[in-house]
Amino acid sequence: MKPETTQSGKNYAVSQLGPTDNWHQFTCEVSALPGIQVPGKAFLAAALRMTGMEISVNVMPPGSGMPFRHRHQRHEETYFFLSGRGQIQIDGEVVDVQPGSVVCIQPNGDRAWRNTGTEPMHYIVIQATVDSLENTTTEDGILSSRAVTW
Amino acid sequence: MKPETTQSGKNYAVSQLGPTDNWHQFTCEVSALPGIQVPGKAFLAAALRMTGMEISVNVMPPGSGMPFRHRHQRHEETYFFLSGRGQIQIDGEVVDVQPGSVVCIQPNGDRAWRNTGTEPMHYIVIQATVDSLENTTTEDGILSSRAVTW
Repeated sequence: MKPETTQSGKNYAVSQLGPTDNWHQFTCEVSALPGIQVPGKAFLAAALRMTGMEISVNVMPPGSGMPFRHRHQRHEETYFFLSGRGQIQIDGEVVDVQPGSVVCIQPNGDRAWRNTGTEPMHYIVIQATVDSLENTTTEDGILSSRAVTW
Repeated sequence: MKPETTQSGKNYAVSQLGPTDNWHQFTCEVSALPGIQVPGKAFLAAALRMTGMEISVNVMPPGSGMPFRHRHQRHEETYFFLSGRGQIQIDGEVVDVQPGSVVCIQPNGDRAWRNTGTEPMHYIVIQATVDSLENTTTEDGILSSRAVTW
């Protein structure tokens, strides 16, 4: 199952993924594993028309871990852990992760991770090109003079 | 309280934010509200040494809503809702949001949001520069030949 665009307009797109308990239904293809539908992983950029970032939602079952290490060419990658307990290693250094652990890895960091707990580990991974953010977030914002009405 | 760097190495930085129930302790400053420590909001880029994205973690209490609309100059913005019930409006079009709702808004989308439920609404907002992602995520990845060991 792939994420769908459930609503959209000129300047936005929406995907209703459902709560984390639903995420095991998602599948995707990755170039490292040709011909295989990887379970429990979905990329969102296509459904959400993203052009500056890619986000994946992920479920890793208890007892599982990444079978390979990887790094990147140009993408910074942030791992945001929502549930479960695990570990992520970067260049051989180990970080314990739990709900609310956020790990930002620069492209050349050699990484792998695993679920060390008894519950599924849910996490979001965000990619963006290094050095591509030009403004701070508040500098980039423009306030509207129109009042908020509902 | 601001997010701290709890661990770091050459190619990574970590912040242990704790579970969403802790996030109401965070505060930040935004240019729209000078001199005010905005409660329940924290930007992560500084603690995590991000250069391609900015991520904020946010809590909005029941009965609250954004008092102003805003848009952006160059940043695409993705709202990822983790808990609670609410609505977000973009150019006057309303989207109902709940856990697992993901909304990507292009810079010119005029936006505001509110909590319409009885529980705190927790959400993550990610900003990145439009059109800055050059590779797909799997094209950008480089597999390592070193086996994973723990």
